[in-house]
Amino acid sequence: MNYKMLGRFLSLILAIETASMVPALLISLFLRETRPVIGFLSAMAAAGAVSGLLYVLTRGADSDFYAREGMVCVGISWIALCLFGCLPFLVSGAIPNFLDALFETVSGFTTTGSSILAHPSALPKGILYWRSFSHWLGGMGVLVFLLALVPISGRNEGYTLHILRAESPGPTVGKLVPKMRQTAKVLYLIYIALTALNVIFLLCGGMSLFDSVCTAFGTAGTGGFGTKDDSIAGFGSYIQIVCTVFMLLFGVNFSIFYLILLGRLRSVFRDEELRFYLLTVFGSVGLIVWNLLRNGVYGGVGETVRHAFFQVASIITTTGFSTTDYEALWPSFSKALLLILMAIGACAGSTGGGLKCSRIVMLLKIMKRNIAEVMHPQKVKTVRLSGKPVSEKILANTNAYFAAYIFIAVASFTVVSFASPYGLTENLSAVLACFNNVGPGLGMIGPASNFAGIGAVSKSVLIMDMLAGRLEIFPIIVLFSRKSWQRG
Amino acid sequence: MNYKMLGRFLSLILAIETASMVPALLISLFLRETRPVIGFLSAMAAAGAVSGLLYVLTRGADSDFYAREGMVCVGISWIALCLFGCLPFLVSGAIPNFLDALFETVSGFTTTGSSILAHPSALPKGILYWRSFSHWLGGMGVLVFLLALVPISGRNEGYTLHILRAESPGPTVGKLVPKMRQTAKVLYLIYIALTALNVIFLLCGGMSLFDSVCTAFGTAGTGGFGTKDDSIAGFGSYIQIVCTVFMLLFGVNFSIFYLILLGRLRSVFRDEELRFYLLTVFGSVGLIVWNLLRNGVYGGVGETVRHAFFQVASIITTTGFSTTDYEALWPSFSKALLLILMAIGACAGSTGGGLKCSRIVMLLKIMKRNIAEVMHPQKVKTVRLSGKPVSEKILANTNAYFAAYIFIAVASFTVVSFASPYGLTENLSAVLACFNNVGPGLGMIGPASNFAGIGAVSKSVLIMDMLAGRLEIFPIIVLFSRKSWQRG
Repeated sequence: MNYKMLGRFLSLILAIETASMVPALLISLFLRETRPVIGFLSAMAAAGAVSGLLYVLTRGADSDFYAREGMVCVGISWIALCLFGCLPFLVSGAIPNFLDALFETVSGFTTTGSSILAHPSALPKGILYWRSFSHWLGGMGVLVFLLALVPISGRNEGYTLHILRAESPGPTVGKLVPKMRQTAKVLYLIYIALTALNVIFLLCGGMSLFDSVCTAFGTAGTGGFGTKDDSIAGFGSYIQIVCTVFMLLFGVNFSIFYLILLGRLRSVFRDEELRFYLLTVFGSVGLIVWNLLRNGVYGGVGETVRHAFFQVASIITTTGFSTTDYEALWPSFSKALLLILMAIGACAGSTGGGLKCSRIVMLLKIMKRNIAEVMHPQKVKTVRLSGKPVSEKILANTNAYFAAYIFIAVASFTVVSFASPYGLTENLSAVLACFNNVGPGLGMIGPASNFAGIGAVSKSVLIMDMLAGRLEIFPIIVLFSRKSWQRG
Repeated sequence: MNYKMLGRFLSLILAIETASMVPALLISLFLRETRPVIGFLSAMAAAGAVSGLLYVLTRGADSDFYAREGMVCVGISWIALCLFGCLPFLVSGAIPNFLDALFETVSGFTTTGSSILAHPSALPKGILYWRSFSHWLGGMGVLVFLLALVPISGRNEGYTLHILRAESPGPTVGKLVPKMRQTAKVLYLIYIALTALNVIFLLCGGMSLFDSVCTAFGTAGTGGFGTKDDSIAGFGSYIQIVCTVFMLLFGVNFSIFYLILLGRLRSVFRDEELRFYLLTVFGSVGLIVWNLLRNGVYGGVGETVRHAFFQVASIITTTGFSTTDYEALWPSFSKALLLILMAIGACAGSTGGGLKCSRIVMLLKIMKRNIAEVMHPQKVKTVRLSGKPVSEKILANTNAYFAAYIFIAVASFTVVSFASPYGLTENLSAVLACFNNVGPGLGMIGPASNFAGIGAVSKSVLIMDMLAGRLEIFPIIVLFSRKSWQRG
């Protein structure tokens, strides 16, 4: 383990976090929110001090970085980010309990959006802004941001790739441009541009600047923290449609936007993941609209389509906003579809969570190949994605990822079942909602409720699930592996 | 497709089924059950006629048989077996609805034990016997029985292997002795001996001969159809303990018994699947006992241990007998554990269903290897099971099987959610109970209820799930593949 390099990374990450708190601090200062100001100042002092100390201690770190070290680095950075990030909630007294504050912060950075708060709108504005901003920072990844910003070492490109691989969602990480640092920059520029566009569209609907910015952060990171107690339900249909469109956009692989900018539309249309994503969205909306109309849940077709589209977009992109209490109103077929969409998730290389569409497509193709092999044992076919052959190593990794995903889900479900006071539906949906970084579940933890009552042990498990879901499992496993910490 | 060989197999399978109905017919004759007698006679006439016709038409069939044809053959044989097997229920009027009769029969042959009957004890004795016997025949496999009995062709061994592979549960099929036919014989001899032992133990507990034989059939096939409305709950603790022990025995890989007979105890102790199986059983019993005692569900420790052991054995071996209404009485942690045990299932090469312990062990090892590879990309380690290296082909197959398993479960859950009048818990547990060949689920389809009210579409899906679960998915997929039916 290259401890010096690890320390250097941590130092820079905490510096970024300290800087990130400045806008929230200014809001609190401007609105004279005394306790939040103290909260932000203490958090900035703590994070800044640790950052400075680590910086001094890690002079002369070299950048010999391997895959394993990349993973450990990402895992530790995220834990540090969350520990210091929960201080404003804790010190300001907005969330006086440590575990609850940590839960809310992890939920923020991992873009989950599960909350322990019944009335988020009652929070001081500075705290509310920090809560939403954590979605934005966690969405594209704070280490990716760091790579785009700071040239840590010019010696090799390897470490950049390892970090990007460990933090970015999806089975493969493509370089958009030859240099990884430039790729990170392009990704962030697209991210910032789309977020700005989202704010503008929301402002045009008459939403206040504060609400627009916070809602756009929640949408861009596919997080789901809102500024109102009833999420997006209280806003008019224009705002709801804007949110639907932008949620769907942020669920798309960002390399697609880059291809569009380059005018390579043929590559866009050939992208199998995008086709699967759109097909799933429109297919689910169709089935849910049919199911809702048959059960006469809403007054008319227009309202039904609007709610169905919003909810499907919100769940498949793992955002977690809601315009309607689907838990109470929707029939169980529609709810079952939402539960399945949670696990499918958004596209790889987006800010969304879940298994990712490309993994589902690959798993389906692996299945197809296996059946073909059973029928014609002689031939071994290559699996292709969007026309390009996929290496056996990536296929094996996808299989292993899927197995690990199921095992962690089952293990978490077992522990949560033991510790939570709720029933089977709640516990299962709590694990799925947190592990896939969605946010709300079903039943007592549905869109109209929160996670406050699920118990301390369950909250701890769900915190781990949110981190494992956001960082795609392996960094968290590697972090707890004894081998990672042996010399050599 | 070798149609002649397929026809020859079908002819022999139906001949066996016709012969299998004789004992049930005799019981009905002896007890003067008029309508069941008519039912059995019609079924035997129909199956016998088709069998004879096919035999005449398929003279001179050669035994050139490939893996794909083995699968198609097994798939079609099972469907034929179920279609003719439901005639006694239908014609006798015991179950007047065709879909219900088919559901009950498929549930019998696939050793699921899910029932649409509220009061099975009200059935005529001959019908009740046939219902239980279908478990016994389906447990070890009717084609395996055929292979043990009839030398269809002496020319090659290949077809025997393909059939045995397609019908026997588990990722690999080991030859116990050099010849496959002898292996099939050894398996059936062990099966018959253990069943007889089970009957004797039950008789010693004062159970009637009829009940003993039927209960032993249900135990041996890990099916779960009983002769009483309350399953095993009405019998004393001696009978319940006998059932617990024999359920656990029939969940063990039969090659273990063969090794014991040969005195090769070292190989037995080294078997990783057996160790995992026993560890899971004792671990689950421990956790459930603790959970039940803490919640004060039963009066004393003895009663708690007895019910916990019985229910764990019944669910992990996918038998489905019950001594207690765990749905109504047990806390949700214990219920969650049962749901997980359903999916784990028994050992490969036993009569039980589920994913099979050896697959779970292999999946865990694949995961471990993948994590190791992420940390040390240079080394590629061989996965070993019980000390022996497992081929990459079998590992890839295990991964694909797992993916197919999850996809079928999710797809079935979606359709059942749409068609069934019940809630999420019922629908999920219905799919898990049928696909893993367990029997009872949770909620309205729990141990004290039945599947009658779940709707025609759901029943059709669950029938497919039971078959796919028993035949381990691929034969059913191959059966519906266009390629299987093309010339060439």
